[in-house]
Order: sequence, then structure tokens, then C-alpha cells
Amino acid sequence: MTKFLDVHAVSQLVQTIGVKTAIREMASYVEADYRRWHEFEKCPRPVSHAAEGCIEVMPISDHGLYSFKYVNNHPRNFEHGLSSVIAFGALAEMKTGYPVLLSELTLATALRTAATSATVAKTLVRPDSRSMAVIGCGSQSEFQILGFHALLGIKIFHIYDIDPAAVKKLCDNLSGEDIKLVPAASTRDAVRQADIVTTITSDKTNATILTPDMMRPGLHINGVGGDCAGKTELHKAILEQARVVVEYEPQTRTEGDIQQMPADFPVIEFWEIVAGKKAGRENNDQITVFDSVGFALEDFSALRYFRDKAESLNIGTKIDLVPVLPNTKDLYSLVRAVPMPMMAPRPPLAEAVALAGAASREDSIE
Amino acid sequence: MTKFLDVHAVSQLVQTIGVKTAIREMASYVEADYRRWHEFEKCPRPVSHAAEGCIEVMPISDHGLYSFKYVNNHPRNFEHGLSSVIAFGALAEMKTGYPVLLSELTLATALRTAATSATVAKTLVRPDSRSMAVIGCGSQSEFQILGFHALLGIKIFHIYDIDPAAVKKLCDNLSGEDIKLVPAASTRDAVRQADIVTTITSDKTNATILTPDMMRPGLHINGVGGDCAGKTELHKAILEQARVVVEYEPQTRTEGDIQQMPADFPVIEFWEIVAGKKAGRENNDQITVFDSVGFALEDFSALRYFRDKAESLNIGTKIDLVPVLPNTKDLYSLVRAVPMPMMAPRPPLAEAVALAGAASREDSIE
Repeated sequence: MTKFLDVHAVSQLVQTIGVKTAIREMASYVEADYRRWHEFEKCPRPVSHAAEGCIEVMPISDHGLYSFKYVNNHPRNFEHGLSSVIAFGALAEMKTGYPVLLSELTLATALRTAATSATVAKTLVRPDSRSMAVIGCGSQSEFQILGFHALLGIKIFHIYDIDPAAVKKLCDNLSGEDIKLVPAASTRDAVRQADIVTTITSDKTNATILTPDMMRPGLHINGVGGDCAGKTELHKAILEQARVVVEYEPQTRTEGDIQQMPADFPVIEFWEIVAGKKAGRENNDQITVFDSVGFALEDFSALRYFRDKAESLNIGTKIDLVPVLPNTKDLYSLVRAVPMPMMAPRPPLAEAVALAGAASREDSIE
Repeated sequence: MTKFLDVHAVSQLVQTIGVKTAIREMASYVEADYRRWHEFEKCPRPVSHAAEGCIEVMPISDHGLYSFKYVNNHPRNFEHGLSSVIAFGALAEMKTGYPVLLSELTLATALRTAATSATVAKTLVRPDSRSMAVIGCGSQSEFQILGFHALLGIKIFHIYDIDPAAVKKLCDNLSGEDIKLVPAASTRDAVRQADIVTTITSDKTNATILTPDMMRPGLHINGVGGDCAGKTELHKAILEQARVVVEYEPQTRTEGDIQQMPADFPVIEFWEIVAGKKAGRENNDQITVFDSVGFALEDFSALRYFRDKAESLNIGTKIDLVPVLPNTKDLYSLVRAVPMPMMAPRPPLAEAVALAGAASREDSIE
């Protein structure tokens, strides 16, 4: 049977582990998987488009495991009391094609995005970075902050959102953490005071959250919110002067902030840095950008992590997602009407063929 | 919450409706969806490859609904007591991106494949067709037979499998039906007596189940088993002389029997026939081929059908697949450690900011 982790189970799992520890441990899975980039069969995620948003399915596999994530992005969902982004997915064995884990992945998406942002940032921030601006205090903001705190030791966060209630929510949620949360008056005000800038806004539009005049030498920009065609956050001129790192170029060309740039605009895939083929940050003055859109490999890592943790913590239930058949060629047995007690017993084969009026008995395999 | 139909629920649903009725009703959904072909956003399914088989995910959407199916094909799975093909998937609202139904789809795959085969065959068989050869008596064979019986009134089936136990299983399963099952000595023997030939073998190889010398004018070939790269059933010379109908050309070019043919080999997409743009069969002597590989639209139809029937029959359970949040921007609330009774109550925001050591109070939104 397939293990199932619903929202309650994943909440329980993450609370048991602790959010920061979960992000730190998940980051080690993400980094380990980026290290073996060439073992994966990859493709840009297919996207279905609606006026209100989009739905994507993100498959990936290595020699042993397959995973996919279903995820949407509907920025106006909050108007109906719904989340902008929800996700779920599965992990399966390549050898058999059988799913071993089906899981909610809304929380996992927030965790693995933070884990990936922080893992990439380790190779791109100035070593003396102490503070981060967080532009957008929605669903994923706490996770980004805890990720940068846990993996890079960042303790000062200049936070901004056009919605004051979102800022309040973030402060409230993280009040017990050993970090300093500084609400800012504007994006400019937040960026002015920070070594790292995380943009994580959700409007589906070609927005310009960051403009060239806000830039200073040595900034690292962790651009998380520009993640589908028609949705960007960074002014083109910022990209022009920056060292830009992406997850998987074929996907980011259409979904990332670099959708604004010519097709030959130079980018580095993160695995190249992990593999030591390319440098991360080259000097203290360089502006670096992680143009993050979210790649299937990170969900693969998240699902592997959930599988291992659910096993060791004994969390989750079993579901009947796949038929278990005594005779694997007899799928029909699942829908064959069960004979009623008063019915005659099923006739043996020879008789059955006769009843069915077999004309060419000599052809029978009996 | 999301409705969940597990294997037991779908078995119950199909048994309640009856297999033939379910295929007939599902066929009307499939045909209705093919009629509005241009309303769908389509793509060839991404495939992940292993030595033992492959795993595919099949997304599609129209303006109102999105669906995907996860499906594998591991022809040697039976050696481990596992099914070759298992599937599951979901139906979601395009307007919100929220899943409304998660369902096992192994049974649905057999039902919708039979429904599609019979629906296509209605436009391609000679009107006087009375008998069908069925080559391969595995998991899907009963469903194909019942589909052609229910939709085309076929009553005589010449069945063949290299495994006599599979033939016996099929005869046993369908012994109560008003049809004539005639086991044949060979593929040639079965084809010789039939107006329609369904090939539904599962070996992952470029096999040649049907050869040109078995052909007769007027045959319709329902080629179901050749459905991924490197897996074919029909000799090339059969395709050369036939009118070939496919589901979705970009996918069938790499997965269907036409993978053996040049890229400009002429094919007709089934929707063109449904829409009256192209003829089905043109004359009584023509050999017609439905080079079926299975297209996402058919699973979309199957999921719609299951959704409607599960609703009217009140079958299925609700699962907690997607977070329900009082504040949609507060995903973190799912993992915030619940304060223990002996712990101090959470401080209000102003205090929290102070505790966190806010240096620039003037920037605070408070």
C-alpha cells in the first residue's frame, strides 16, 4: 500500500522536528540531489493556464525514484478565502512504477523553497552578510527567514509588505525566535539596510519590485516570487548588471525574471556551482541574483526527506491507491459482480465456453 | 476538502453501475470531450524512463477543469506479483487550482481505453462487422470486449494469448455475458475469422504481432498495446496500406506504432472525424487502424464521469490534501508549535518586536 501524509500528518512531522531543523535537514537533501544533477531525467514543467492563475505538474526521476508535484498559482485566491499556492505529489519506485508515498506538499513547497534559497545563497552572499530584506510577508516569508537564519546565521530581517496585517502576522509568528525583525516603511527602506534581498511577492504581473537605483555593490538578491510567464519582480537593468544563477535553464527562460532578457543572456545553473565547474560570487562588489522559480528536483528531495522522516517517526497512514491483485492479469476481478448466495456457482471454463456457444472448439486452448 | 476514491470505492462504483453501462456512459463523456478538442490546453505527456519500464504524467485542461494522471508501464512487473500498469490522478478547478477529486485510475484506465477504442471504432469498422479478434488476454481484455459489445453490438470474440491461463481467466470472467468467446490456436487463427482486430499485448519491445499476410480488405485494427517508444505491435507494411487514426499526433509520433514511419506519414486525429472535417472509413475495402496510445483527454473524461457518479451514488471519502487556513497568508500557523499550558502566553506584536530587539521602531508599521 501507499503511505499517505495529509496536511495534519505533515504539520505533525514538521512540528516534531522543528521548522528550522526541518529546513536545515531538507537543505542537505536538496544539495545532495543537486550534486548528482546528471543522474536525473528532467523536463520543464507543463503548465495549464487560466485567467485566474495556472496549474503545473512537475515530474523528475533518477535511477531509483520518480516524483511529481501538482502545484497551482492563483494570486487572487485570497479573495475567496483560499490559498494562492497549494500542492501535493508522490514519490514512486522507478523499478516497478508503484507509488510509495503520496503527500500534501503545500508546506513542503514552503520548506523546500526556503531550503533551496538558503543553499544557493551560501554560494552567492558576501561572507560578511548580516541582514536580509524580505519583500512580501505572505505564506512563505517565515520559512525564508528561518531558512536564512538556520543556514547562514542571518539574524536581522528588514521586512516589508503592502499589507500591514501580513507584517504583523509574520512578527507574531516569529516572536519566539532569536532574530531581529524590523518592519520597514517601504521596499526601498528595507533594501537600503540589507546585505541580502528576498523578494517573495505574489501578484501575477510583470511587477518591478526592485529597481536599479536600489542596488548597491555586493547585494545578493534571492528572487522567489517571479516564477511564471508574465510574473516578474526585478527590473531588467538589475539582471543586466548581475551574476544570475538559475535552477534549470530551460524552465527559467520562460518562467523566471530572465523571461525579460534575450535568449542568450548568460546564466549559471546552480549545479555548476555545486560541482565546482563555475564560481559562485566572484568578488565583494558583484551583485548576484538567484532567479528562483522552483524546480522538480527540490520536490523530489522534499519527498525523499518526508519519506525518511515519516518512516522514522512513524507518521502517516496507508491508502488503497493501487490495486493488489492475486492474479495481476485479472484486473477485472475488481469489478466482477460478487455472486449472490442463491446464485448457481460459476461454471468451470469448459462449460463456460460451451454456454457462451463456442463454435470452434478445436481452436480452444482447453 | 478533496474527495478521494480509492480502489475499493471505484470497484464499488463500477459494480453498482455495471461494467458495460460504465463503459457506455464513459464513452459518451469521451466523445463529448473530443467534440470540443480546441477548448483543451494539451501537451505530449512527459515520460521518465527506467530499464524496467516507464512512468508518465498526463496533464490537460479546459477552461473549467484540469486533470492529470500518473501512470506507469512495467511489462515485467508480473514477475514480482505486481501489475504492469497502475494509475491514479486528480481533477481540479482551473478557477482556483484546488483539487476536487483524487482517484485511483487503474480501473479507470481500462474503462476509458475500452470506451475510447469502441468510440473510435464506431467511425472506422465496416457496418456489417460482427466479430473481433482479441490478441492478448491481460488486464484490459475483458474491458475491450465489453466495450465493443456494449457500443458496437459485437458478439463473437476470437481470443488468443501466448499464456493459456490468461485465456481461461478471460473466459471465466465473461462467462455470464451474452457473447461468444472462441479461443484461437494462434494470432493468425484469431485474425482470420474476425472483422475487427484488437491487439493488446504488453511486451515492451518492437514486436510484430500482426503481419501483412494476415490482412484482408475491410479489416479494422484497434492497436492498443503499442503505446510507448520502443513498443510496437504492427508491421510497418500494415500501416503503409491503412487509413491511420490517432488521438493526438505530437504524442503518437513518438509512442504509437507510427513511430516506425517517417515524420510525414499521413494520419488523421480522431477529433477531425468527430468534427466532420475528415471521413472515418471511406469504403468497405479499406484497412483502418486506430493507433491508440492513450491521451490525457480520455482520463479527463473518466475523472469527470467518476466525479459525477461518485456524487450521485454518494461514494468516496474526504481527505485533508490541502490546507484550510483561517488566514490564507498564514501557512506558518500549521507548524507553529502549540504553546504548552505552562508556557507564558504569546506576547502581542509591539512587545514581540521589542523582544526581537527592533532597532528602527520608526519603520514599524505599528
